[in-house]
Amino acid sequence: MAISSLNELTDVLKQKARKFKIAVACGNDANTINALYEAADNGFATPVLIGDETKIQDIIKEQNLDGSLFNIIDEKDDLKALNLALKMVKNDEADVLMKGLIGTDKFLHAVLNKENGLMKPKAVMSYVCAVEVPKYHKLLFVTDTAVLPYPDLSQKIAMLKYSIAMAKQFGIEKPKVALIGASEKINNGFQNSNDYAVMCKMVERGQLPDCIIDGPLDIFLACDKESVAIKGVSTPVNGDADILLFPNLEACNSFYKGLMLFAGGELAGLIQGTEKPVVVMSRSESEKSKYYCVALACLMCLNK
Amino acid sequence: MAISSLNELTDVLKQKARKFKIAVACGNDANTINALYEAADNGFATPVLIGDETKIQDIIKEQNLDGSLFNIIDEKDDLKALNLALKMVKNDEADVLMKGLIGTDKFLHAVLNKENGLMKPKAVMSYVCAVEVPKYHKLLFVTDTAVLPYPDLSQKIAMLKYSIAMAKQFGIEKPKVALIGASEKINNGFQNSNDYAVMCKMVERGQLPDCIIDGPLDIFLACDKESVAIKGVSTPVNGDADILLFPNLEACNSFYKGLMLFAGGELAGLIQGTEKPVVVMSRSESEKSKYYCVALACLMCLNK
Repeated sequence: MAISSLNELTDVLKQKARKFKIAVACGNDANTINALYEAADNGFATPVLIGDETKIQDIIKEQNLDGSLFNIIDEKDDLKALNLALKMVKNDEADVLMKGLIGTDKFLHAVLNKENGLMKPKAVMSYVCAVEVPKYHKLLFVTDTAVLPYPDLSQKIAMLKYSIAMAKQFGIEKPKVALIGASEKINNGFQNSNDYAVMCKMVERGQLPDCIIDGPLDIFLACDKESVAIKGVSTPVNGDADILLFPNLEACNSFYKGLMLFAGGELAGLIQGTEKPVVVMSRSESEKSKYYCVALACLMCLNK
Repeated sequence: MAISSLNELTDVLKQKARKFKIAVACGNDANTINALYEAADNGFATPVLIGDETKIQDIIKEQNLDGSLFNIIDEKDDLKALNLALKMVKNDEADVLMKGLIGTDKFLHAVLNKENGLMKPKAVMSYVCAVEVPKYHKLLFVTDTAVLPYPDLSQKIAMLKYSIAMAKQFGIEKPKVALIGASEKINNGFQNSNDYAVMCKMVERGQLPDCIIDGPLDIFLACDKESVAIKGVSTPVNGDADILLFPNLEACNSFYKGLMLFAGGELAGLIQGTEKPVVVMSRSESEKSKYYCVALACLMCLNK
């Protein structure tokens, strides 16, 4: 059975009763500690907070948390703490790398470092979010919410592979992929719709992971069966998309933030292209979404 | 007092008790007739349906409507019906032009025609929607949902002027404009954020209509005060935007369709750049939204 909500995601992890070690670079951050506490308390994570121990202990006390659930490594220097966390993950002493109170630029710079970083060889860095909204009957995997501004064809193909791999980890054997545009019309003036046509043909030829793919499709045709019927468009996605692949960052970012703010959405998101899961949470996300991000990282470790 | 919902929009029109004449090109369309019937029944529109009279009468009977609210001009040829409707509006015999059962391409081609069309001299055609979602405290004017794929600076300026003019017609004296990006950071690699900086400076210098403008801002900073506080960004829009101007069509289109589908949204949208209001409804919109589109066209006729 496929996981169809973020609650089910955490249920699966609770049942597995496997604890994933999460190395946090600069763990002296209340948001990070709270999200990790919930994951540890639910039995699927062992947080290793690397950072200023005094500050970490203060936060744990302030938040009234059980300190015994945390391992702490005292390292007051931010860059040293970051490198230590990275090294633990690289050396298989930890399963997941997570950003604490350190700039995203510095953090990603270290992850992208060719010698000591965490990227797979020649991999494109991207970002996939599993989005849950009460008005959709299952999770929506959307990409790229955060990294690639105007993906070209090869980057779009990477985004497709990442989102399919994630959907499969959720138990969706043959995900339905909608390549998003403003309408379903191919317009040769626009590179995006041409790229989409190429991707559909590549799936047909077996050159990409197995999936049901179509595009360009607008949000209505991707996610609403009724619109498909009204418009009379024949599409195998048929208003039942699992994955929405967007043509640019602004489109994907605005779409998911609109759902978070106005549609009661929650999400679990993860950096893509790394050898091990890497968690970078945004401060604007809800407490719940931060916890789900940790859970998603743990799910991606399963069967590996 | 500013109009803060689409219901208030129709209330204002009911109170004015002025009937706007709406010339429909190819009026033999049930969706169009239903939306117009509601507007006529509420006392603010006089529909003139130009098209195949037999078919029109059949639809009116099928839908059980009071036929006396409609004027009908029998013209079976689609292009002739379109030209007749256009001529009526051009000659001030009607206030609003509306598309019925005729292809959008043909219809817009006629509107854009330099000699006999309805565009203001040298005007850019664009589209602005007033979007209502239960979770936002007022209307959101979003642009461009439908026409300009990748607006350049001068097109963005046109979009800004149109959306400000519409917001003012809703009684918003000094609208707050958020120029939407994936984050609030200026990135010189990207033309959109540079264009936004130019537009902010032009408003500061009084070269554009009076408004409170800032960008790039993401959806959270544009529409959520709490996110502004959490992120510690100083912005005069301050999570209270009236207008969202998007960097490309795919972003705006996906955003508003996400809200329609998942956030209980309704909208009223209108073609921009024309001498008189022009209504083009999408079949995928809800019945209510279609009625609101007609109402918006009538509102834009007031005080003219």
